[in-house]
Amino acid sequence: MTPAARPLRLSTADAGFEAAFQARLHWSEETDAGVEQTVAGILADVKRRGDDAVLEYSNRFDAVGAASLGELELPASELQAAFAALPAPQRSALEQAAARVRRYHEAQKKASGESWSYREADGTLLGQKVTPLDRVGIYVPGGKAAYPSSVLMNAIPAQVAGVPEIIMVVPTPRGEKNLLVLAAAHLAGVTRVFRIGGAQAVGALAYGTATVPRVDKITGPGNAYVASAKRRVFGQVGIDMIAGPSEILVLADGSTPPDWVAMDLFSQAEHDELAQSILLCPDVGYIGRVQAEIDRLLPAMPRAQIIAKSLSGRGALIHTRSMEEACEISNRIAPEHLEIASSEPSRWEPLLRHAGAIFLGSFTSESLGDYCAGPNHVLPTSGTARFSSPLGVYDFQKRSSLIEVSEAGARSLGPIAAELAYGEGLQAHARAAEMRYKG
Amino acid sequence: MTPAARPLRLSTADAGFEAAFQARLHWSEETDAGVEQTVAGILADVKRRGDDAVLEYSNRFDAVGAASLGELELPASELQAAFAALPAPQRSALEQAAARVRRYHEAQKKASGESWSYREADGTLLGQKVTPLDRVGIYVPGGKAAYPSSVLMNAIPAQVAGVPEIIMVVPTPRGEKNLLVLAAAHLAGVTRVFRIGGAQAVGALAYGTATVPRVDKITGPGNAYVASAKRRVFGQVGIDMIAGPSEILVLADGSTPPDWVAMDLFSQAEHDELAQSILLCPDVGYIGRVQAEIDRLLPAMPRAQIIAKSLSGRGALIHTRSMEEACEISNRIAPEHLEIASSEPSRWEPLLRHAGAIFLGSFTSESLGDYCAGPNHVLPTSGTARFSSPLGVYDFQKRSSLIEVSEAGARSLGPIAAELAYGEGLQAHARAAEMRYKG
Repeated sequence: MTPAARPLRLSTADAGFEAAFQARLHWSEETDAGVEQTVAGILADVKRRGDDAVLEYSNRFDAVGAASLGELELPASELQAAFAALPAPQRSALEQAAARVRRYHEAQKKASGESWSYREADGTLLGQKVTPLDRVGIYVPGGKAAYPSSVLMNAIPAQVAGVPEIIMVVPTPRGEKNLLVLAAAHLAGVTRVFRIGGAQAVGALAYGTATVPRVDKITGPGNAYVASAKRRVFGQVGIDMIAGPSEILVLADGSTPPDWVAMDLFSQAEHDELAQSILLCPDVGYIGRVQAEIDRLLPAMPRAQIIAKSLSGRGALIHTRSMEEACEISNRIAPEHLEIASSEPSRWEPLLRHAGAIFLGSFTSESLGDYCAGPNHVLPTSGTARFSSPLGVYDFQKRSSLIEVSEAGARSLGPIAAELAYGEGLQAHARAAEMRYKG
Repeated sequence: MTPAARPLRLSTADAGFEAAFQARLHWSEETDAGVEQTVAGILADVKRRGDDAVLEYSNRFDAVGAASLGELELPASELQAAFAALPAPQRSALEQAAARVRRYHEAQKKASGESWSYREADGTLLGQKVTPLDRVGIYVPGGKAAYPSSVLMNAIPAQVAGVPEIIMVVPTPRGEKNLLVLAAAHLAGVTRVFRIGGAQAVGALAYGTATVPRVDKITGPGNAYVASAKRRVFGQVGIDMIAGPSEILVLADGSTPPDWVAMDLFSQAEHDELAQSILLCPDVGYIGRVQAEIDRLLPAMPRAQIIAKSLSGRGALIHTRSMEEACEISNRIAPEHLEIASSEPSRWEPLLRHAGAIFLGSFTSESLGDYCAGPNHVLPTSGTARFSSPLGVYDFQKRSSLIEVSEAGARSLGPIAAELAYGEGLQAHARAAEMRYKG
């Protein structure tokens, strides 16, 4: 029997709203001392013993039964074969998704990832050179959370950025490979694939071993061990954000069919029990119709158990005084996914300051964005959209300032630099500037 | 008596080069368990007790003798007065530097920090909206490393990004204020200043207290306690990179006066004993002339002791086979500051893939870039230029993807998303897409 999915009903007009709202939003990543200690030990071991350590942990945790780390590399031919073996509709969908994701990220690179400079009247040149990273690592989870779409979303921006080497790691517990994941790796231009995972894979990518090359940045989702390992190697290599549970917030003015909205809430909730789905709407009757659709549609969902737990445990249907108030609450949440289920989405979009991705209008289901609209589906969670951005081409590039001061420029800038350097007590700084114009 | 400054002499042609080179480069941030424990305690206390905790630690560590946290806020009038009281040449230098830094960052915003979008044939719109952070915190060290130029370099990009509130914290041990720092805060458009520092200041900014508002990101340098606190609050708020010792690498073809290069090496070395200055040059005679200038110039430097320790302990003069080889070695180091002391800097610049800032040609001393050329002086250290960038306007902005799928778009994209979602076992994702075209 399907359990009921009953998101918390709240109204901003209620006296207890603020406390109940805060309690529902609350989520904090627990740091597990056992995980931390295990990960610290694995990383130190990988740093010291390289291949041998990675091989041992892979045999122990993933039961891959390998005699050498080299055995765990998948040849390009195997990726290609996985791609060729896909049923035609799946292959075509993957190709079309990849092409759209590529086009979007090419536009992103053009809009914000090109080198620039300007020259001043005296010949001084200032600017910034934008270059791709040399080599990046992409972590792809094995098991139930093995998503081929994530391979596309991590590898394609790196490829568009111009990264020459993309190293993918993916654990294969008991040797089980996910063919869709391998096909996606082929399509997305991944350079090499190793069947390793966990903290040992993160360590191998961060420090390099005889077999696994050291990378400059590691992106991609993982479990608590992977997240802990990424935090620990940060600084040694770059990392993307550590993701929390996935979230959707739907702002509804009542013009979108309520069953569409119910299914959008489901699509977030089906990820896992900690996923959060919230509806904000000024029309209390509409909220009731969405709840009715939730009740009607839930029994047919294969993942009904997870959806029910997620919606009942972390979901909320919030009645607001107005759409304006709904926008203000959305800004406080800074959601990962923000749907404007409205007939006039452009009216509300300018009021929305923080969100990973904004889905405008009734036809834009979050799931279109997850797979194939083009923008990245790796988005900031847990309110981090206040200060961070979707994964993008910019995450696989870095910038170097360019400064070429002319002889005339050294004469005009030197005295300014010298004055400030003396003020800070840094005389060599001052003298280095002065020598260029005083001799 | 001035001690000798004798950077390590190496030649890439020597058999032992690789090992000696690696040993000289080696630097690893030690994690001090005592610091970690202290910081964890302070942060937890600030989170729990807010103002009271921050006040207690400030009185204990900085001896500020305050009765409330409110007393430790500096009014805008005091910043303005500090600015007005500066000697005219200093005020003018600070103003000119600020204006140039502002102009550069405005160009940066225009080149890479504006919203963009495109519309497809069927009306679907895709793009990215770029918005400033709501509120940022800038940490400014007190004591010997109190640099007004750092205030400009942190606050101006935030202001150019459009951040409405910039909160600065700066400890004032025993109540001592640095007037240049306060003047710079006035000039750079800092919104509020609190005389607090250490882990307690980082905690106050990250969690917010009754008096100190919670920010979205914290930038700026600090000691080991501040660095540890920033690492710990990362995720709760954004942070910039944790900086290691400062470094300069000079690529010289022998055409720059050797005393200029010697002084540039000094200007890095005078920061502290761990700072690293390296010269790469294919002309062994020129290397000798630079060493001679080091010997000649050192005794007149007020910070000669620090310079000598830094150059002898961490500096290197490396004879390379060619400029090309020098460029390749520079890429392995990925230096914070990279000077091309050459008559043809544009010939070598394209070969240089990793650096925080590249200073082209003999007239471009690093110190001009540190203070007033315009580019930011907050740069990636310790080889992190492999994957990270100078502080910039982009650090004070975030991006939200924009997706508006038209009715026709939902018909063409829906089947692709559904196919992939079924492949990943996410049926609600598939149904949400299908409902938009199948009803």
